[in-house]
Amino acid sequence: MGRIICCGLGPGDPDLMSVRADRTVRAAKHVAYFRKKGLPGQARRIVEGMLAKDVTEYPMEYPVTTEIAFDSSEYIQLLAGFYDEWAERLARAVEVVVLCEGDPYFYGSFMHLHTRLQGRAEIEVIAGIPGMAGCWNAVGRPIALGDDVTTVLMGTLAEHELERRMRDSDALVIMKTGRNLQKVRRALTSAGRLNDAWLVERGTMPGERVVRLAEVDAAECPYFAIVLVHGRGRHLDAAE
Amino acid sequence: MGRIICCGLGPGDPDLMSVRADRTVRAAKHVAYFRKKGLPGQARRIVEGMLAKDVTEYPMEYPVTTEIAFDSSEYIQLLAGFYDEWAERLARAVEVVVLCEGDPYFYGSFMHLHTRLQGRAEIEVIAGIPGMAGCWNAVGRPIALGDDVTTVLMGTLAEHELERRMRDSDALVIMKTGRNLQKVRRALTSAGRLNDAWLVERGTMPGERVVRLAEVDAAECPYFAIVLVHGRGRHLDAAE
Repeated sequence: MGRIICCGLGPGDPDLMSVRADRTVRAAKHVAYFRKKGLPGQARRIVEGMLAKDVTEYPMEYPVTTEIAFDSSEYIQLLAGFYDEWAERLARAVEVVVLCEGDPYFYGSFMHLHTRLQGRAEIEVIAGIPGMAGCWNAVGRPIALGDDVTTVLMGTLAEHELERRMRDSDALVIMKTGRNLQKVRRALTSAGRLNDAWLVERGTMPGERVVRLAEVDAAECPYFAIVLVHGRGRHLDAAE
Repeated sequence: MGRIICCGLGPGDPDLMSVRADRTVRAAKHVAYFRKKGLPGQARRIVEGMLAKDVTEYPMEYPVTTEIAFDSSEYIQLLAGFYDEWAERLARAVEVVVLCEGDPYFYGSFMHLHTRLQGRAEIEVIAGIPGMAGCWNAVGRPIALGDDVTTVLMGTLAEHELERRMRDSDALVIMKTGRNLQKVRRALTSAGRLNDAWLVERGTMPGERVVRLAEVDAAECPYFAIVLVHGRGRHLDAAE
Protein backbone atom coordinates (compact mmCIF):
# COMPACT_ATOMS: atom_id res chain seq x y z
CA MET A 1 0.00 0.00 0.00
CA GLY A 2 1.09 3.55 -0.70
CA ARG A 3 1.13 6.32 1.84
CA ILE A 4 -1.03 9.46 1.83
CA ILE A 5 -0.11 12.26 4.20
CA CYS A 6 -2.90 14.78 4.53
CA CYS A 7 -1.17 17.89 5.72
CA GLY A 8 -3.22 20.58 7.49
CA LEU A 9 -1.77 23.96 6.50
CA GLY A 10 -3.63 26.12 9.02
CA PRO A 11 -5.53 29.35 8.33
CA GLY A 12 -3.32 30.84 5.59
CA ASP A 13 -0.18 32.43 7.04
CA PRO A 14 2.66 29.91 6.35
CA ASP A 15 4.16 30.91 9.71
CA LEU A 16 1.09 29.36 11.37
CA MET A 17 1.69 25.92 9.87
CA SER A 18 2.84 23.36 12.43
CA VAL A 19 6.50 22.45 12.67
CA ARG A 20 5.58 18.97 11.40
CA ALA A 21 3.57 20.32 8.47
CA ASP A 22 6.40 22.69 7.51
CA ARG A 23 8.92 19.83 7.52
CA THR A 24 6.56 17.53 5.59
CA VAL A 25 5.82 20.08 2.86
CA ARG A 26 9.51 20.87 2.33
CA ALA A 27 10.45 17.19 2.08
CA ALA A 28 7.58 16.15 -0.22
CA LYS A 29 8.35 14.58 -3.61
CA HIS A 30 4.68 14.50 -4.71
CA VAL A 31 2.02 16.99 -3.64
CA ALA A 32 -1.70 17.13 -4.48
CA TYR A 33 -4.19 19.89 -3.72
CA PHE A 34 -7.74 20.89 -4.57
CA ARG A 35 -8.42 23.99 -6.59
CA LYS A 36 -11.01 25.66 -8.73
CA LYS A 37 -10.22 25.37 -12.43
CA GLY A 38 -8.19 28.33 -13.66
CA LEU A 39 -7.11 29.51 -10.20
CA PRO A 40 -3.81 28.74 -8.43
CA GLY A 41 -5.62 27.33 -5.39
CA GLN A 42 -5.53 28.49 -1.78
CA ALA A 43 -3.59 25.48 -0.42
CA ARG A 44 -0.96 25.83 -3.16
CA ARG A 45 -0.61 29.55 -2.46
CA ILE A 46 0.13 28.91 1.23
CA VAL A 47 3.16 26.72 0.40
CA GLU A 48 4.54 29.04 -2.30
CA GLY A 49 8.35 29.05 -2.10
CA MET A 50 8.48 26.01 0.21
CA LEU A 51 8.29 23.10 -2.26
CA ALA A 52 11.37 21.17 -3.36
CA LYS A 53 12.72 21.98 -6.85
CA ASP A 54 12.00 18.49 -8.20
CA VAL A 55 8.51 18.11 -6.68
CA THR A 56 5.69 16.70 -8.82
CA GLU A 57 2.40 18.55 -8.42
CA TYR A 58 -1.11 17.15 -8.86
CA PRO A 59 -3.71 19.92 -8.94
CA MET A 60 -7.09 18.26 -8.28
CA GLU A 61 -9.44 20.59 -10.15
CA TYR A 62 -13.10 20.59 -9.16
CA PRO A 63 -15.31 19.84 -12.18
CA VAL A 64 -17.77 22.44 -10.81
CA THR A 65 -17.79 24.78 -7.80
CA THR A 66 -20.58 27.34 -7.63
CA GLU A 67 -21.85 27.12 -11.24
CA ILE A 68 -24.66 24.71 -10.33
CA ALA A 69 -26.58 24.15 -7.06
CA PHE A 70 -24.59 22.09 -4.53
CA ASP A 71 -27.64 19.97 -3.66
CA SER A 72 -28.61 19.14 -7.26
CA SER A 73 -28.16 15.54 -8.41
CA GLU A 74 -25.92 16.74 -11.24
CA TYR A 75 -23.52 18.42 -8.78
CA ILE A 76 -23.54 15.42 -6.47
CA GLN A 77 -22.77 13.01 -9.34
CA LEU A 78 -20.02 15.18 -10.82
CA LEU A 79 -18.31 15.57 -7.45
CA ALA A 80 -18.63 11.89 -6.54
CA GLY A 81 -17.02 10.93 -9.87
CA PHE A 82 -14.25 13.45 -9.29
CA TYR A 83 -13.46 12.11 -5.81
CA ASP A 84 -13.62 8.48 -7.05
CA GLU A 85 -11.13 9.23 -9.79
CA TRP A 86 -8.65 11.00 -7.52
CA ALA A 87 -8.94 8.34 -4.82
CA GLU A 88 -8.04 5.82 -7.52
CA ARG A 89 -5.01 7.85 -8.68
CA LEU A 90 -3.74 8.57 -5.16
CA ALA A 91 -4.17 4.94 -4.09
CA ARG A 92 -1.71 3.94 -6.82
CA ALA A 93 0.98 6.41 -5.70
CA VAL A 94 3.91 5.50 -3.43
CA GLU A 95 3.76 8.59 -1.22
CA VAL A 96 1.78 11.78 -1.75
CA VAL A 97 1.37 14.79 0.51
CA VAL A 98 -2.13 16.23 0.13
CA LEU A 99 -2.16 19.93 1.02
CA CYS A 100 -5.28 20.99 2.94
CA GLU A 101 -6.24 24.38 4.34
CA GLY A 102 -7.10 24.60 8.03
CA ASP A 103 -7.52 21.37 9.98
CA PRO A 104 -8.33 18.41 7.68
CA TYR A 105 -10.74 16.69 10.10
CA PHE A 106 -12.80 19.87 10.59
CA TYR A 107 -15.10 20.21 7.54
CA GLY A 108 -12.13 19.44 5.24
CA SER A 109 -12.65 18.47 1.60
CA PHE A 110 -9.99 15.77 1.98
CA MET A 111 -12.54 13.75 3.95
CA HIS A 112 -14.23 12.79 0.66
CA LEU A 113 -10.94 11.08 -0.26
CA HIS A 114 -10.31 9.82 3.30
CA THR A 115 -13.53 7.79 3.15
CA ARG A 116 -12.66 6.36 -0.25
CA LEU A 117 -9.03 5.53 0.61
CA GLN A 118 -9.77 3.43 3.72
CA GLY A 119 -8.00 0.09 3.34
CA ARG A 120 -6.43 1.16 0.02
CA ALA A 121 -3.59 3.34 1.37
CA GLU A 122 -1.89 4.11 4.65
CA ILE A 123 -3.29 7.52 5.68
CA GLU A 124 -1.67 10.00 8.05
CA VAL A 125 -3.38 13.28 8.93
CA ILE A 126 -1.46 16.26 10.33
CA ALA A 127 -3.63 18.58 12.43
CA GLY A 128 -3.67 22.29 11.59
CA ILE A 129 -5.00 25.50 13.10
CA PRO A 130 -8.61 25.67 11.83
CA GLY A 131 -9.45 28.62 9.56
CA MET A 132 -11.91 29.94 12.16
CA ALA A 133 -9.11 30.25 14.75
CA GLY A 134 -7.10 32.36 12.31
CA CYS A 135 -10.20 34.56 11.93
CA TRP A 136 -10.88 35.10 15.63
CA ASN A 137 -7.20 35.76 16.15
CA ALA A 138 -7.48 38.51 13.50
CA VAL A 139 -10.25 40.18 15.55
CA GLY A 140 -7.98 40.12 18.61
CA ARG A 141 -10.63 39.17 21.18
CA PRO A 142 -11.41 35.83 22.85
CA ILE A 143 -14.10 33.98 20.92
CA ALA A 144 -15.23 32.05 24.02
CA LEU A 145 -14.56 32.08 27.76
CA GLY A 146 -15.74 30.47 30.98
CA ASP A 147 -18.80 28.29 30.37
CA ASP A 148 -19.77 29.86 27.02
CA VAL A 149 -21.45 27.57 24.51
CA THR A 150 -19.83 27.84 21.05
CA THR A 151 -21.80 26.81 17.97
CA VAL A 152 -20.32 26.35 14.50
CA LEU A 153 -22.91 26.77 11.74
CA MET A 154 -22.74 26.46 7.96
CA GLY A 155 -24.31 29.29 5.96
CA THR A 156 -25.94 26.60 3.80
CA LEU A 157 -28.50 25.81 6.57
CA ALA A 158 -32.10 27.07 6.28
CA GLU A 159 -32.67 30.60 7.53
CA HIS A 160 -35.07 29.63 10.35
CA GLU A 161 -32.59 26.98 11.51
CA LEU A 162 -29.75 29.52 11.51
CA GLU A 163 -31.88 32.03 13.43
CA ARG A 164 -32.99 29.52 16.07
CA ARG A 165 -29.42 28.42 16.73
CA MET A 166 -28.03 31.97 16.72
CA ARG A 167 -30.47 32.84 19.54
CA ASP A 168 -29.41 29.80 21.52
CA SER A 169 -25.61 30.09 21.66
CA ASP A 170 -23.10 32.39 23.36
CA ALA A 171 -20.31 32.33 20.75
CA LEU A 172 -21.03 31.76 17.06
CA VAL A 173 -18.90 30.81 14.08
CA ILE A 174 -20.59 30.83 10.68
CA MET A 175 -18.67 29.21 7.83
CA LYS A 176 -19.56 28.75 4.14
CA THR A 177 -20.89 32.27 4.02
CA GLY A 178 -20.10 33.34 0.42
CA ARG A 179 -23.38 33.58 -1.48
CA ASN A 180 -25.29 32.78 1.74
CA LEU A 181 -24.22 36.02 3.38
CA GLN A 182 -27.52 37.87 2.87
CA LYS A 183 -29.38 34.97 4.52
CA VAL A 184 -26.86 34.79 7.37
CA ARG A 185 -27.26 38.50 7.93
CA ARG A 186 -31.07 38.34 8.00
CA ALA A 187 -30.92 35.44 10.48
CA LEU A 188 -28.50 37.36 12.74
CA THR A 189 -30.76 40.40 12.59
CA SER A 190 -33.85 38.36 13.56
CA ALA A 191 -31.89 36.72 16.37
CA GLY A 192 -30.79 40.14 17.68
CA ARG A 193 -27.10 39.40 17.15
CA LEU A 194 -26.21 41.47 14.06
CA ASN A 195 -24.56 44.28 16.00
CA ASP A 196 -22.19 41.85 17.70
CA ALA A 197 -21.16 40.12 14.46
CA TRP A 198 -17.80 40.44 12.70
CA LEU A 199 -16.95 39.47 9.15
CA VAL A 200 -13.39 38.27 8.67
CA GLU A 201 -12.17 37.89 5.09
CA ARG A 202 -8.90 36.09 4.30
CA GLY A 203 -8.01 35.73 8.00
CA THR A 204 -4.16 35.76 8.50
CA MET A 205 -3.70 36.03 4.70
CA PRO A 206 -2.62 38.93 2.46
CA GLY A 207 -5.64 41.21 2.05
CA GLU A 208 -7.10 40.30 5.45
CA ARG A 209 -10.15 42.41 6.30
CA VAL A 210 -11.91 42.55 9.68
CA VAL A 211 -15.16 44.53 9.74
CA ARG A 212 -18.43 44.68 11.64
CA LEU A 213 -20.95 42.75 9.56
CA ALA A 214 -23.56 45.51 10.04
CA GLU A 215 -21.26 47.88 8.13
CA VAL A 216 -20.66 45.64 5.13
CA ASP A 217 -22.37 45.43 1.77
CA ALA A 218 -23.35 41.76 1.66
CA ALA A 219 -22.95 41.70 -2.11
CA GLU A 220 -19.16 41.76 -1.87
CA CYS A 221 -18.30 38.71 0.21
CA PRO A 222 -15.39 36.51 -0.94
CA TYR A 223 -15.26 32.77 -0.41
CA PHE A 224 -12.72 32.88 2.41
CA ALA A 225 -14.94 34.73 4.86
CA ILE A 226 -16.20 33.69 8.28
CA VAL A 227 -18.75 35.44 10.49
CA LEU A 228 -18.03 35.52 14.24
CA VAL A 229 -20.05 36.53 17.29
CA HIS A 230 -18.01 36.53 20.51
CA GLY A 231 -19.14 34.89 23.73
CA ARG A 232 -19.08 36.85 26.95
CA GLY A 233 -17.81 34.26 29.41
CA ARG A 234 -20.56 34.30 32.03
CA HIS A 235 -18.47 32.81 34.83
CA LEU A 236 -15.50 34.93 33.88
CA ASP A 237 -17.64 38.08 34.12
CA ALA A 238 -18.75 37.02 37.57
CA ALA A 239 -15.12 36.68 38.60
CA GLU A 240 -13.98 40.10 37.36
CA MET B 1 5.00 49.98 27.48
CA GLY B 2 6.36 46.45 27.66
CA ARG B 3 5.46 43.68 25.29
CA ILE B 4 3.56 40.48 26.14
CA ILE B 5 3.55 37.68 23.59
CA CYS B 6 0.91 35.10 24.38
CA CYS B 7 2.12 32.02 22.59
CA GLY B 8 -0.39 29.28 21.75
CA LEU B 9 1.41 25.94 22.08
CA GLY B 10 -1.23 23.71 20.48
CA PRO B 11 -2.64 20.44 21.85
CA GLY B 12 0.50 19.02 23.49
CA ASP B 13 2.85 17.51 20.92
CA PRO B 14 5.68 20.09 20.43
CA ASP B 15 5.76 19.10 16.76
CA LEU B 16 2.24 20.57 16.44
CA MET B 17 3.31 24.04 17.60
CA SER B 18 3.28 26.61 14.80
CA VAL B 19 6.53 27.60 13.15
CA ARG B 20 6.11 31.08 14.69
CA ALA B 21 5.45 29.70 18.18
CA ASP B 22 8.48 27.41 17.93
CA ARG B 23 10.72 30.31 16.94
CA THR B 24 9.25 32.58 19.65
CA VAL B 25 9.72 30.03 22.43
CA ARG B 26 13.33 29.30 21.46
CA ALA B 27 14.21 33.03 21.35
CA ALA B 28 12.46 33.99 24.60
CA LYS B 29 14.44 35.62 27.43
CA HIS B 30 11.51 35.61 29.87
CA VAL B 31 8.71 33.04 29.91
CA ALA B 32 5.64 32.84 32.15
CA TYR B 33 3.11 29.99 32.42
CA PHE B 34 0.21 28.92 34.62
CA ARG B 35 0.47 25.81 36.74
CA LYS B 36 -1.00 24.09 39.73
CA LYS B 37 1.20 24.43 42.81
CA GLY B 38 3.60 21.51 43.13
CA LEU B 39 3.24 20.35 39.51
CA PRO B 40 5.56 21.18 36.57
CA GLY B 41 2.66 22.55 34.50
CA GLN B 42 1.35 21.36 31.15
CA ALA B 43 2.50 24.40 29.13
CA ARG B 44 6.00 24.14 30.60
CA ARG B 45 6.14 20.44 29.83
CA ILE B 46 5.35 21.06 26.14
CA VAL B 47 8.41 23.33 25.70
CA GLU B 48 10.80 21.06 27.65
CA GLY B 49 14.21 21.13 25.95
CA MET B 50 13.35 24.17 23.79
CA LEU B 51 14.09 27.09 26.14
CA ALA B 52 17.31 29.10 25.95
CA LYS B 53 19.94 28.33 28.61
CA ASP B 54 19.71 31.80 30.18
CA VAL B 55 15.90 32.10 30.15
CA THR B 56 14.12 33.46 33.23
CA GLU B 57 10.99 31.52 34.15
CA TYR B 58 7.89 32.85 35.94
CA PRO B 59 5.61 30.01 37.04
CA MET B 60 2.21 31.58 37.77
CA GLU B 61 0.86 29.20 40.41
CA TYR B 62 -2.90 29.11 40.95
CA PRO B 63 -3.75 29.81 44.62
CA VAL B 64 -6.47 27.14 44.31
CA THR B 65 -7.63 24.79 41.56
CA THR B 66 -10.19 22.17 42.49
CA GLU B 67 -9.94 22.37 46.31
CA ILE B 68 -12.94 24.70 46.59
CA ALA B 69 -16.01 25.19 44.36
CA PHE B 70 -15.24 27.28 41.26
CA ASP B 71 -18.45 29.31 41.69
CA SER B 72 -17.94 30.14 45.38
CA SER B 73 -17.15 33.76 46.29
CA GLU B 74 -13.95 32.63 47.99
CA TYR B 75 -12.68 30.99 44.79
CA ILE B 76 -13.69 33.98 42.69
CA GLN B 77 -11.90 36.44 45.00
CA LEU B 78 -8.74 34.36 45.26
CA LEU B 79 -8.50 33.97 41.50
CA ALA B 80 -9.24 37.65 40.80
CA GLY B 81 -6.46 38.67 43.20
CA PHE B 82 -4.08 36.20 41.57
CA TYR B 83 -4.77 37.55 38.06
CA ASP B 84 -4.51 41.17 39.28
CA GLU B 85 -1.12 40.51 40.81
CA TRP B 86 0.28 38.78 37.73
CA ALA B 87 -1.11 41.43 35.38
CA GLU B 88 0.74 43.98 37.52
CA ARG B 89 4.01 42.03 37.36
CA LEU B 90 3.80 41.32 33.62
CA ALA B 91 2.90 44.95 32.83
CA ARG B 92 6.22 46.03 34.37
CA ALA B 93 8.32 43.61 32.27
CA VAL B 94 10.09 44.59 29.02
CA GLU B 95 9.15 41.48 27.04
CA VAL B 96 7.62 38.25 28.31
CA VAL B 97 6.43 35.21 26.39
CA VAL B 98 3.39 33.69 28.11
CA LEU B 99 3.10 29.99 27.28
CA CYS B 100 -0.49 28.84 26.74
CA GLU B 101 -1.84 25.41 25.82
CA GLY B 102 -4.06 25.14 22.76
CA ASP B 103 -5.31 28.36 21.17
CA PRO B 104 -5.23 31.31 23.61
CA TYR B 105 -8.45 32.95 22.35
CA PHE B 106 -10.45 29.73 22.69
CA TYR B 107 -11.35 29.34 26.40
CA GLY B 108 -7.75 30.20 27.34
CA SER B 109 -6.79 31.18 30.91
CA PHE B 110 -4.57 33.93 29.52
CA MET B 111 -7.75 35.90 28.72
CA HIS B 112 -8.02 36.82 32.43
CA LEU B 113 -4.68 38.62 31.97
CA HIS B 114 -5.53 39.86 28.46
CA THR B 115 -8.49 41.82 29.89
CA ARG B 116 -6.39 43.30 32.67
CA LEU B 117 -3.42 44.21 30.45
CA GLN B 118 -5.37 46.27 27.90
CA GLY B 119 -3.66 49.66 27.56
CA ARG B 120 -0.89 48.65 29.97
CA ALA B 121 1.24 46.54 27.60
CA GLU B 122 1.51 45.78 23.91
CA ILE B 123 -0.09 42.34 23.51
CA GLU B 124 0.54 39.88 20.69
CA VAL B 125 -1.30 36.56 20.53
CA ILE B 126 -0.01 33.63 18.46
CA ALA B 127 -2.77 31.23 17.39
CA GLY B 128 -2.39 27.54 18.16
CA ILE B 129 -4.13 24.28 17.28
CA PRO B 130 -6.94 24.02 19.87
CA GLY B 131 -6.74 21.07 22.27
CA MET B 132 -10.00 19.67 20.85
CA ALA B 133 -8.43 19.43 17.37
CA GLY B 134 -5.57 17.36 18.82
CA CYS B 135 -8.21 15.10 20.36
CA TRP B 136 -10.29 14.53 17.24
CA ASN B 137 -7.10 13.96 15.30
CA ALA B 138 -6.24 11.21 17.83
CA VAL B 139 -9.54 9.45 17.05
CA GLY B 140 -8.67 9.56 13.33
CA ARG B 141 -12.13 10.42 12.01
CA PRO B 142 -13.59 13.74 10.81
CA ILE B 143 -15.36 15.53 13.64
CA ALA B 144 -17.67 17.41 11.26
CA LEU B 145 -18.52 17.39 7.56
CA GLY B 146 -20.91 18.95 5.07
CA ASP B 147 -23.55 21.04 6.85
CA ASP B 148 -23.07 19.47 10.30
CA VAL B 149 -23.69 21.74 13.28
CA THR B 150 -20.84 21.53 15.81
CA THR B 151 -21.44 22.53 19.44
CA VAL B 152 -18.73 23.04 22.05
CA LEU B 153 -20.00 22.56 25.60
CA MET B 154 -18.37 22.89 29.00
CA GLY B 155 -18.94 20.04 31.45
CA THR B 156 -19.66 22.70 34.09
CA LEU B 157 -23.12 23.39 32.55
CA ALA B 158 -26.27 22.06 34.25
CA GLU B 159 -27.21 18.50 33.31
CA HIS B 160 -30.56 19.40 31.68
CA GLU B 161 -28.80 22.10 29.64
CA LEU B 162 -26.14 19.64 28.49
CA GLU B 163 -28.77 17.07 27.57
CA ARG B 164 -30.89 19.54 25.61
CA ARG B 165 -27.90 20.72 23.57
CA MET B 166 -26.55 17.21 23.02
CA ARG B 167 -29.88 16.27 21.39
CA ASP B 168 -29.76 19.32 19.17
CA SER B 169 -26.31 19.14 17.53
CA ASP B 170 -24.62 16.88 14.98
CA ALA B 171 -21.04 17.03 16.26
CA LEU B 172 -20.26 17.61 19.95
CA VAL B 173 -17.14 18.61 21.85
CA ILE B 174 -17.36 18.57 25.64
CA MET B 175 -14.50 20.25 27.51
CA LYS B 176 -13.89 20.70 31.24
CA THR B 177 -14.97 17.14 31.87
CA GLY B 178 -12.79 16.13 34.86
CA ARG B 179 -15.05 15.83 37.89
CA ASN B 180 -18.08 16.55 35.68
CA LEU B 181 -17.67 13.33 33.74
CA GLN B 182 -20.46 11.40 35.52
CA LYS B 183 -22.88 14.24 34.76
CA VAL B 184 -21.70 14.47 31.13
CA ARG B 185 -22.19 10.74 30.76
CA ARG B 186 -25.72 10.82 32.20
CA ALA B 187 -26.64 13.70 29.87
CA LEU B 188 -25.26 11.84 26.83
CA THR B 189 -27.21 8.72 27.85
CA SER B 190 -30.47 10.70 28.19
CA ALA B 191 -29.82 12.37 24.85
CA GLY B 192 -29.25 8.96 23.19
CA ARG B 193 -25.67 9.79 22.22
CA LEU B 194 -23.57 7.78 24.70
CA ASN B 195 -22.76 4.99 22.26
CA ASP B 196 -21.31 7.47 19.77
CA ALA B 197 -19.14 9.26 22.35
CA TRP B 198 -15.35 9.02 22.63
CA LEU B 199 -13.20 10.03 25.57
CA VAL B 200 -9.76 11.32 24.60
CA GLU B 201 -7.25 11.75 27.41
CA ARG B 202 -3.98 13.64 26.88
CA GLY B 203 -4.61 14.00 23.11
CA THR B 204 -1.29 14.07 21.13
CA MET B 205 0.65 13.83 24.44
CA PRO B 206 2.60 10.97 26.04
CA GLY B 207 0.04 8.62 27.63
CA GLU B 208 -2.66 9.47 25.07
CA ARG B 209 -5.75 7.28 25.48
CA VAL B 210 -8.69 7.08 23.07
CA VAL B 211 -11.66 5.02 24.29
CA ARG B 212 -15.40 4.80 23.83
CA LEU B 213 -16.94 6.65 26.75
CA ALA B 214 -19.46 3.84 27.32
CA GLU B 215 -16.55 1.52 28.15
CA VAL B 216 -14.87 3.79 30.69
CA ASP B 217 -15.09 3.96 34.45
CA ALA B 218 -16.06 7.61 34.96
CA ALA B 219 -14.21 7.68 38.27
CA GLU B 220 -10.82 7.73 36.57
CA CYS B 221 -10.91 10.79 34.31
CA PRO B 222 -7.84 13.04 34.21
CA TYR B 223 -8.02 16.78 33.69
CA PHE B 224 -6.81 16.74 30.09
CA ALA B 225 -9.78 14.83 28.73
CA ILE B 226 -12.30 15.83 26.09
CA VAL B 227 -15.48 14.01 25.06
CA LEU B 228 -16.29 13.93 21.33
CA VAL B 229 -19.33 12.86 19.32
CA HIS B 230 -18.71 12.89 15.56
CA GLY B 231 -21.06 14.49 13.06
CA ARG B 232 -22.24 12.49 10.07
CA GLY B 233 -22.12 15.09 7.33
CA ARG B 234 -25.67 14.97 6.04
CA HIS B 235 -24.91 16.48 2.65
CA LEU B 236 -21.76 14.42 2.32
CA ASP B 237 -23.75 11.23 2.97
CA ALA B 238 -26.18 12.26 0.26
CA ALA B 239 -23.25 12.66 -2.13
CA GLU B 240 -21.66 9.27 -1.47
